[in-house]
Amino acid sequence: MTKPADKPWLFRTYSGHSSATDSNALYRSNLSKGQTGLSVAFDLPTQTGYDSDHELAQSEVGKVGVPVCHLGDIRTLFDGIPLDKMNTSMTINATAPWLLALYIALADERNIDRSSLRGTVQNDVIKEYLSRGTYICPPEPSLQMTIDVAEYCIRNIPNWNPTNVCSYHLQEAGATPEQEIAYALATAVAVLDGLKERVEEHEFPLAVGRISFFVNAGIRFVTEMCKMRAFTELWDEICRSRYGVERKELRRFRYGVQVNSLGLTEQQPENNVHRIMLEMLAVTLSRNARARAVQLPAWNEAMGLPTPWDQQWSLRMQQILACESDLLEFGDLFDGNPAVAEKVKAIKSDALNELRQVEELGGAIKSIEFMKRRLVESNGERIRRIESGETIIVGVNKYREGVRSPLESGRTSTLRVGPEVAAEQIERLEAWRRDRNPHRVKNALDKLRQAAKAGVNILPASIDAAKAGVTTGEWGMVMRSEHGEFRAPTGISRAPSNTVGDLVEIRQAVDDASRKLGRRLKLLIGKPGLDGHSNGAEQIVCRARDCGIDIAYDGIRFTPEDIADAALQERAHVVGLSILSGTHLPLVGEFRRRMTERGLASVPLVVGGIIPEEDAKELRELGVAGVYTPKDFDINNIMMEIVRLASADAVAGEDCETTRTSKDSDVAQRRTQSVDV
Amino acid sequence: MTKPADKPWLFRTYSGHSSATDSNALYRSNLSKGQTGLSVAFDLPTQTGYDSDHELAQSEVGKVGVPVCHLGDIRTLFDGIPLDKMNTSMTINATAPWLLALYIALADERNIDRSSLRGTVQNDVIKEYLSRGTYICPPEPSLQMTIDVAEYCIRNIPNWNPTNVCSYHLQEAGATPEQEIAYALATAVAVLDGLKERVEEHEFPLAVGRISFFVNAGIRFVTEMCKMRAFTELWDEICRSRYGVERKELRRFRYGVQVNSLGLTEQQPENNVHRIMLEMLAVTLSRNARARAVQLPAWNEAMGLPTPWDQQWSLRMQQILACESDLLEFGDLFDGNPAVAEKVKAIKSDALNELRQVEELGGAIKSIEFMKRRLVESNGERIRRIESGETIIVGVNKYREGVRSPLESGRTSTLRVGPEVAAEQIERLEAWRRDRNPHRVKNALDKLRQAAKAGVNILPASIDAAKAGVTTGEWGMVMRSEHGEFRAPTGISRAPSNTVGDLVEIRQAVDDASRKLGRRLKLLIGKPGLDGHSNGAEQIVCRARDCGIDIAYDGIRFTPEDIADAALQERAHVVGLSILSGTHLPLVGEFRRRMTERGLASVPLVVGGIIPEEDAKELRELGVAGVYTPKDFDINNIMMEIVRLASADAVAGEDCETTRTSKDSDVAQRRTQSVDV
Repeated sequence: MTKPADKPWLFRTYSGHSSATDSNALYRSNLSKGQTGLSVAFDLPTQTGYDSDHELAQSEVGKVGVPVCHLGDIRTLFDGIPLDKMNTSMTINATAPWLLALYIALADERNIDRSSLRGTVQNDVIKEYLSRGTYICPPEPSLQMTIDVAEYCIRNIPNWNPTNVCSYHLQEAGATPEQEIAYALATAVAVLDGLKERVEEHEFPLAVGRISFFVNAGIRFVTEMCKMRAFTELWDEICRSRYGVERKELRRFRYGVQVNSLGLTEQQPENNVHRIMLEMLAVTLSRNARARAVQLPAWNEAMGLPTPWDQQWSLRMQQILACESDLLEFGDLFDGNPAVAEKVKAIKSDALNELRQVEELGGAIKSIEFMKRRLVESNGERIRRIESGETIIVGVNKYREGVRSPLESGRTSTLRVGPEVAAEQIERLEAWRRDRNPHRVKNALDKLRQAAKAGVNILPASIDAAKAGVTTGEWGMVMRSEHGEFRAPTGISRAPSNTVGDLVEIRQAVDDASRKLGRRLKLLIGKPGLDGHSNGAEQIVCRARDCGIDIAYDGIRFTPEDIADAALQERAHVVGLSILSGTHLPLVGEFRRRMTERGLASVPLVVGGIIPEEDAKELRELGVAGVYTPKDFDINNIMMEIVRLASADAVAGEDCETTRTSKDSDVAQRRTQSVDV
Repeated sequence: MTKPADKPWLFRTYSGHSSATDSNALYRSNLSKGQTGLSVAFDLPTQTGYDSDHELAQSEVGKVGVPVCHLGDIRTLFDGIPLDKMNTSMTINATAPWLLALYIALADERNIDRSSLRGTVQNDVIKEYLSRGTYICPPEPSLQMTIDVAEYCIRNIPNWNPTNVCSYHLQEAGATPEQEIAYALATAVAVLDGLKERVEEHEFPLAVGRISFFVNAGIRFVTEMCKMRAFTELWDEICRSRYGVERKELRRFRYGVQVNSLGLTEQQPENNVHRIMLEMLAVTLSRNARARAVQLPAWNEAMGLPTPWDQQWSLRMQQILACESDLLEFGDLFDGNPAVAEKVKAIKSDALNELRQVEELGGAIKSIEFMKRRLVESNGERIRRIESGETIIVGVNKYREGVRSPLESGRTSTLRVGPEVAAEQIERLEAWRRDRNPHRVKNALDKLRQAAKAGVNILPASIDAAKAGVTTGEWGMVMRSEHGEFRAPTGISRAPSNTVGDLVEIRQAVDDASRKLGRRLKLLIGKPGLDGHSNGAEQIVCRARDCGIDIAYDGIRFTPEDIADAALQERAHVVGLSILSGTHLPLVGEFRRRMTERGLASVPLVVGGIIPEEDAKELRELGVAGVYTPKDFDINNIMMEIVRLASADAVAGEDCETTRTSKDSDVAQRRTQSVDV
C-alpha cells in the first residue's frame, strides 16, 4: 500500500491464421477491444523456413499461424499498425533472424527509426530440439544465429528483446517446475556465454539486461507462483555471480507468459476458463515476480483455432484482473511469508541440482539428449499420475458426470482454415517472385551465403535480402545448405521402464499376439508433416515399449512417403500417426495412398491428434482403425486396441475384429486379401 | 508445506425453484455432480410467512426459491436425501424457527437423532431491515426469535449453526468492507448479549462457538481477502474480551460465502465467470481465514434463474480450485507479509470505529436507522464512482466493444417458472388442509400463540405445530398477530446531497418542467409485491432528490393498489416501480388496472428491475414508458427521461413525447384525454 500502484502488464493474445490480410484484421479487432500488445503466431512453413508452395508446406499454410513469405506479407500483416508505438512479440525461432529482418525492412520503408522498435523475437532454438520441433540447423550454428540477433539488437534496437528464453514449451513437454527453471537458465547461459565473446565489455551488462524469458504457468498455481519467485532470484544470482552485472535493473527477471495448454481439457471444455484464470494468477499475484506480458489461450484452444469471441473472452480475463480488481494497488503479497519462502527455497535448490547436471555435461548445447530424456521421463510420470487418479482433472478422471455445455452446441465452436487459403497465398507468392528483380535477389542471397559461411552476423545481409524481395524459403535454403539440417534426439531409451503398474495383462496380450504373429508385435509410430509436437507420440512409444511391443520411432517431420517406406522396411504390424497441427485429413489420405502403392493397404492404421469428431468420422471412412484425441488419456486402453488390431491381423478370417466403425469390417476384408507384411 | 493439507470447504449451490419436487430433483442432480452440501433457496411467500395462496403471494410462488407451506413440502424437498449425513444450509430468516421446526419434524418422522443434524439457518433478521427485506415483526421480538433458535440448538442440535450472521447482504446494499464487518459484528453481539441471559454459564462459550457468519466477496479480492483476515481477528478479540471465551476453537471465525452478485453485469455476461473466480479466491486463498462453505452464483445470475448447466459450471470452479490446484497443500500464504498486515490493520481500525458508533447508539437493534442511512450513502458513492469511471467495470464503462457471446444466443439462457407452478402448489396446499385434523391444528396454533405471548422459546411449539400439519401462513399469522408487523426505515434523508457532480443541467430541466407543471415535479417510487431488494429504488430516489425532484417513497412490500392510492394522493407526475423478483409482468398489469380505476391511466410509468428484453417489450406494450435494467447504470440518463416524461405531460398536445416505443404515442393520446392529476 505504501508503494504506488503497479502498472498493468501487456495484454496480448497469441494469434494469426490464414493470411496476412485476415491476421491484420484480427489484430486490429483485438487492439480495438483493449489489447495492448501483439503476439504473432506464424504457420509451420514460415517457422521452419519453407515457402508456402514447398512440398512439405502443403496443407500447413495458414493453419497454426499466419504465412509470411516475404516483405509484402509483412507489409500487409502490419498495415495500419504503428510499428514505433506497438510492442510486438513474434513466436519465431529458427527463422527469427529472417522475420526480424523483414520487420526492420518494413520499419525502414516507413521511415521509422529502428531504435524506436519495441518487441520480442522468441529466438530460442534449444527448446525447439527439446519440445517444439521447429529447428532447422544443428545446435551450434543455430545458437550462433540466436547470438547474431542479440548482438545486432544491442547495437541497433536497444529496446528489443532479442531472445525470449522459453521454459514454456518445456512444461508442455512435461517438465517439472525445477526442470523448467534449470533448462531455461542453461539456455540463457549458453546465449550469454557466446554473446560475451562478441560484444565490448561495456556493452555486455546491457546485453544481459535484454535477455527475457517466456514461461508457462500450470494449474498448481501456488507452486507456479513460487516457481516464478525462484526463477527471479536465481536469475539475479546468475547475473551477479557469473556475469558480474552490478546494476540491479539489468538483473531483473523480465518475462512474458502463455499459460498452460497441456492441462486444458476437451472434456467439459468450459472448465478451461477456470483453469486459465488460476494459471494467470500464478504469474500476476506476486509483484516481485510479476509477468510483464500475458497472453492467454482461449477455453477451446485444446480443440482448434479460437474464434474472435473466444479470444475476446480471454482478454477480458486480463482486463478484469488488472482494472476491476485491486491487485495492482498492493505491494508484494508474499514477502516475509514462511510457507512461500520454504517452497521457493526448495524449488531453487532442486533447480540448481538439475542445472549442475547440465553444466557437468558441458552446458545446454551438449545436454540436449540428456534434457530430452529427462523431459520424456517427467511427462511419463505426469501421465501415470493422471491415469492412477493421483492427479485429479475435473471432467477427465473425476466429476465426469455433467450436462453438455451450450458453448459447444449450435455453432462451429472453432475457426476452420479452408483449402483456398493456401491456393491464394501461393498465388500471391508467385506474383511476388515474378515482380522482383532476379539479379538483385541473387546478389542478396550470395551475400547472405557468404555471411553464413564466414561466421559473421547474418542480420545485415538478411535485412538487405528482405528488401531485395528474397523469400522465407530462399533464406531457409541458404541456412540449410550452409549449416546442414538436424534431427533431434527422441529422448526415448530402448530399455523398458517399470514405473507404470498394471501392465501384466497387456504384456500377456502382447506376448500372445507376438506368438500368433510369429515374431514380436511391431508398432511403427510416425509424425508426418511439419508438426513438431511430439509429446504424445513419445508417450505412446514409451508405453508400447514398456508393454513389450517392438517399437520403431524416429522423431518428427517425415513425409507420408518416408513413413510408408519405414512401414515396409520395419514390417510393421500396426502403424500409428501423430498429427497435432490439424492437418490430419490430407496427411492421412496421402499416407494411405503411399501404403497402397507398397501393397500395405491392410496394415492397421491408428491416428492420434487434435481431431474434431466430424474429422474422426472421415478418417474412419478412409480406413483408419482407431482415432485418439487428448480425451483418450488412458494409454493402456490404446495399447490394448493396438494389440487387438495386430491380433486380428494374425488370425485374419476369424471374427475378432474391433467394431469401432461400420467401415472396420471392410478393412478386415481388404486385409485378408492383401499380401502378408 | 509443513502443515498437513487443508480439507476442502463445502461445495454448495444456492438453489431451489418452482416446487419441492423440482427442487429435490435439482439437489440430487447437483449432489451427483460432486456438490458436498445443500443450500436451500425459498420463495418470497415462504420467507415472509405467507402460504402460496395468500393475496401477496400471487405471482411469487416458486419464483426465487422453493415454496414450502407444510411438512409435506419438506418431505418432498428432502426425499432420498439422508438428513443425518447432509449438511444443509437454509437461507431463511423471519420464518427460520418455523423452517427449522419443519426440518426437525421430518427428522423425527424418519427416526433420525436430532443431535445428528448438521447445517445452518440464516436466522439474521437485522440485516433484513437493512437490506434484504424479508422481515415480518419489529426488531425486538424478531431478535428474541433468533435467540430462541440459538438456545434450542445448543441444547438439542449441538452441531447446527443457529444463526449465520450476514454481512453478505450489506455488501449487496453497498457497504464498504469496514461497514460489512462492523454491522455484522454488532448483530452477532446483539444475539449473544441476549443469549447470555438465557443459557447457563457453562453453556455460553459453546453458544458463542456456534455463531457463524455469511459473508460476501467482491471483485477487489485482495482487499476482500484482508477483510476476511480482519474479520477473523476481530471476532477472536470480541469472543475473548467481551465474552471471556477461553477455548480457541470456540473463538474461531467460521463462515460461509456467496460471492458478490452486485458486481455481475448483464453486459458481456460471460465475463462474470472471471469475476466469480476472483471473488472466490478472496475467501479461499488465505488458510488462516478460509471459508468453510462456498456457494457461487452462476454467470447469468444477473439475468434470471440459472439452468442446471450454469450451476454445474460454477460448481466446477470450486472443484478445480480445491482438487486440481495445489492451494490446499500449503500453510497460510500471507502470514508475515507487511502489505497484507498493513491493510488488515487499517480495515480493523476503521471497522472498530464504525462499530463504536453503533454501540454508542445502544447496539444493533437501536441503530437500524443509522446503519441503513450509512448503507444508502455508501451505495450512492459506489454508483457515483462507476458513473465517473473511477471504478472500472469491463463491458460497462470500459472495453464495451465486443463480439456477442454464443452463450447468449440460440437458447433460453435462463430458466423460467411458469404460472402452472403456483396453481399446482395451491392445489397441493388445499389438499393438505383438507386431509389434516383441524382440531389438532387449532390446538397446536393455540399453544404456539401462548408461547409467543409468554415469551418462552417458540421452537418446541413450532415443532409440534409442524407435526400437526400447520402451514407457513398460519405460523406467520400467529407471529404477526402477537408481535405486530414492521416497516423498516428507508435510509433516505430529505436533504439533498451534493456528492454527485454534473447535476446542473438536470436541475435546470427539473425546474423548467416544474414551472410548466405549476408545482414541483413529483415522482412516486413504489416497490410492489414481496420483493425486498430496495437498493435500486433507494438510489433512484436519492438521485431524484438531489436533482430537485419532489419524491415520494415509503419502502418495500406494498400491493399495486396501495401504490395507485399513493399516486392519487401524492398527485404524482411520474410513477416508477422497482421489481427485482422477476414478477414484473403480473405486478405491472395489476398496477395499470388500479391506476385506470382511479383515472390515472395517463400518468407516465417507468419500471426498473431484472427484466429480460422480451419482457421489456411486453411491458412497453402494456403502456410502460421506460424500462430500466442493471445495464442502465447511468442514473442521470434515467433522471432526464423522467423529466422528459413529466414535461410531455405538462405540454400535452405538443409533439415533444419521447419515442421509446410504438405504443408511446398511444399513451400520449390517452394522457391528453385523461383528467388532470
